[in-house]
Amino acid sequence: MNNQIKKEEIDKIVRTISEDYNNGRTIDEINIFNKPDKSEVQELVNNLFRIVYPGYFTDRTYKIYNPLNSFAVIIEDTFYRLNKQVTLALDYSKQKEPLAQDKREEESYRICKVFFDKIPTIREYIETDLLATFEGDPSAGSYEEIILAFPGLFAITVYRLAHELYLENVPVLPRLMTEYAHSLTGIDIHPGATIDKSFFIDHGTGIVIGETSIIGKNVKIYQGVTIGALSTRGGQRLSGKKRHPTICDNVTIYANASILGGDTVIGENTVIGGNSFITSSVEPNSKVSMKSLDVECQAGGKTVKSGEIGQGDAWFYVI
Amino acid sequence: MNNQIKKEEIDKIVRTISEDYNNGRTIDEINIFNKPDKSEVQELVNNLFRIVYPGYFTDRTYKIYNPLNSFAVIIEDTFYRLNKQVTLALDYSKQKEPLAQDKREEESYRICKVFFDKIPTIREYIETDLLATFEGDPSAGSYEEIILAFPGLFAITVYRLAHELYLENVPVLPRLMTEYAHSLTGIDIHPGATIDKSFFIDHGTGIVIGETSIIGKNVKIYQGVTIGALSTRGGQRLSGKKRHPTICDNVTIYANASILGGDTVIGENTVIGGNSFITSSVEPNSKVSMKSLDVECQAGGKTVKSGEIGQGDAWFYVI
Amino acid sequence: MNNQIKKEEIDKIVRTISEDYNNGRTIDEINIFNKPDKSEVQELVNNLFRIVYPGYFTDRTYKIYNPLNSFAVIIEDTFYRLNKQVTLALDYSKQKEPLAQDKREEESYRICKVFFDKIPTIREYIETDLLATFEGDPSAGSYEEIILAFPGLFAITVYRLAHELYLENVPVLPRLMTEYAHSLTGIDIHPGATIDKSFFIDHGTGIVIGETSIIGKNVKIYQGVTIGALSTRGGQRLSGKKRHPTICDNVTIYANASILGGDTVIGENTVIGGNSFITSSVEPNSKVSMKSLDVECQAGGKTVKSGEIGQGDAWFYVI
Repeated sequence: MNNQIKKEEIDKIVRTISEDYNNGRTIDEINIFNKPDKSEVQELVNNLFRIVYPGYFTDRTYKIYNPLNSFAVIIEDTFYRLNKQVTLALDYSKQKEPLAQDKREEESYRICKVFFDKIPTIREYIETDLLATFEGDPSAGSYEEIILAFPGLFAITVYRLAHELYLENVPVLPRLMTEYAHSLTGIDIHPGATIDKSFFIDHGTGIVIGETSIIGKNVKIYQGVTIGALSTRGGQRLSGKKRHPTICDNVTIYANASILGGDTVIGENTVIGGNSFITSSVEPNSKVSMKSLDVECQAGGKTVKSGEIGQGDAWFYVI
Repeated sequence: MNNQIKKEEIDKIVRTISEDYNNGRTIDEINIFNKPDKSEVQELVNNLFRIVYPGYFTDRTYKIYNPLNSFAVIIEDTFYRLNKQVTLALDYSKQKEPLAQDKREEESYRICKVFFDKIPTIREYIETDLLATFEGDPSAGSYEEIILAFPGLFAITVYRLAHELYLENVPVLPRLMTEYAHSLTGIDIHPGATIDKSFFIDHGTGIVIGETSIIGKNVKIYQGVTIGALSTRGGQRLSGKKRHPTICDNVTIYANASILGGDTVIGENTVIGGNSFITSSVEPNSKVSMKSLDVECQAGGKTVKSGEIGQGDAWFYVI
Repeated sequence: MNNQIKKEEIDKIVRTISEDYNNGRTIDEINIFNKPDKSEVQELVNNLFRIVYPGYFTDRTYKIYNPLNSFAVIIEDTFYRLNKQVTLALDYSKQKEPLAQDKREEESYRICKVFFDKIPTIREYIETDLLATFEGDPSAGSYEEIILAFPGLFAITVYRLAHELYLENVPVLPRLMTEYAHSLTGIDIHPGATIDKSFFIDHGTGIVIGETSIIGKNVKIYQGVTIGALSTRGGQRLSGKKRHPTICDNVTIYANASILGGDTVIGENTVIGGNSFITSSVEPNSKVSMKSLDVECQAGGKTVKSGEIGQGDAWFYVI
């Protein structure tokens, strides 16, 4: 029976679906030759990790005993492939008048040179992120463990690479890169965010950092934290406006806190407790925490309010 | 030493583990030839994306210059492979009396025809989801960026495909499909949920939409939202009962809100603020938000309560 | 133009980046031959799934009709490859004096034997986790669906395997294994956690279970739950201290609850409601829930406080 799929029935299905491609909708686009390629971009990110952390991620394609030789090959190959994807991506510019093909190739080549020239600076920042992660996390056994296994450093590294392409106004590609990291880590950092040195993310799943966020030095963020917009009901009309908060130097934001709004500034050295929900500015050197929730606890059949059980009002404090 | 692993020691390990397969437990099942194949199902989903979005996801297996030719090949191949997996899955029906092999093949063929006939309708819905995403998200640069990179549209697309197989009572397979999307996006939509057109999910990580949820048109949902059951302590006895909420048309649910319970109805045009925790119905045209939490903020050594700092009681409002 | 990338410009880029590898920073390490390999460890986990669930995950490398033959091959192959990775990992021990190469090989061989000897015991625990998942989840259609598709059982299985290597003081590798599961499921269980039989995780995305957590029998945990430290500002100085809670037998913790602190003990049979934030101990047989939040609801233009709408004070209760 499996071998008896009726030819005419399959033909009819193929015909129906092919006709459905003729409705002129966005999803009916069938030219696959002029778009950035999702799996190619993911491979590019993997190659960039081999360049940023030269001794940590092997490429089994190459059997080479002098690593420096293989790096030359990887860098050249990555340059070539990035150049191709940037050229394709430039066709999706928000500019009214897209560039002609030769202008796009020229612009792409310029962008790739700028990007590769910045790699030493990007690596300088990433070293500070690595050190901040080791300092901040008592569960970290070694630097190597962090580089090989920790999702926070992975997502930050992809963000730092994608951010440079975002600054050069490359469409689509930077978001494809950070969404690859989002997919692997649950950490969603928009490539447009501005993040200073020594950034530490712990655990990370559920973190969202919006496009116009500004984050200072030595900031620590835990799982489930949103640095987001107060409301995006304005939709596309809000595009380009500062919609996300500013987090100053040395701020710590514990798990599942939400900080929202483009005018919200969290002053330096402030600690934001877990589960906080903050929509306006906090002065420097503050400590924000939920003191208590109106929690009901039934112990042994008896109902008591929070603050009356166990260690008194230490019952439901934060951090 | 690595080369001197002692043969008798390995043999003993193999023997011990092989004997452990004889305990008759569920995990001791060793026949691998009659089960749906997880990696094959993931490849099926990838192929279905090539059919739903014909110009966006390349298959490097084929070098073809007329895309319509390759679609015929992809559709036929996908039909054949889906048919095989559905046949295998039908063996896991909850029905007391599983179907005989030839009846399963017949039923599978019928289901696959129904499924492929519905693809134009599924694509019609997905186009509305794409437009709703672009409208709703100021960070979206283009439709192409959304199709290639945004996790929300990815998870919704997989859900819409899996839901059709769920409606035909295919066991295991629909959940394998949506769990593949869950794994890549952190968005867990049960294939049994009922979701109308123009559905928009932003960021998405941590979203859970339960099996018996009903969601209307033009609904927007943000990261961390649970549309779930009030309690599942009833376990398997609750199977089949409506355990999850109904969300009416034009409702917006901001980040990390939880809406729970099978009798809970969120009326149309309502906005649910971030971090809300809701377990009973809300009237249409409502705006639900946390006004303030009992939050303590120590600024410059001085302790002040929420509502006394900064912009007064705007301090901890929602959305 | 794409074909005219100027040789001297690429050479300059390669030279600049190669020079940047000479700064002596952690990320400048370029020797790739003496480190655990991330993709190899992920392949090891996949192989271990073939051993733990012999009939569920095929390896297309082998075409063998007697499954027991292929298991012998897979077990031997996995032993050999694990042995290699453990040997490499032992170089990253926190011990002051790393072991010499031959001592590491000897120690690795000993550890691998201990690990494989424990596989029947690990499988005994995993069978209880599977049964607990089926019992606890009304959406589970069959045991097979759970094994093939459910992220909770996947993450628990990887944890149980990695935990045994953690107990033998293997550096880096256990965390690489659990972070692979974290990446696929959004569930972050530290390999150092102690977790008894019949553990059930539903949905799972956003769950964090810290290194020194202790979890009893028959515990159920839902998405977004943190079992974490009160504060990790102590950083590396806290390494090795008990920083995470103890959860006793038969406790249920609903979605997005946070339980924090090394002295926090949740007594047996207690139910922790969704979104609870708990930082000190709870007596056995308790039911902790948020009674109400100060929520504002504007319905039809009229503003009413929580407790005054709909079903009265049932409005915002928990679970």
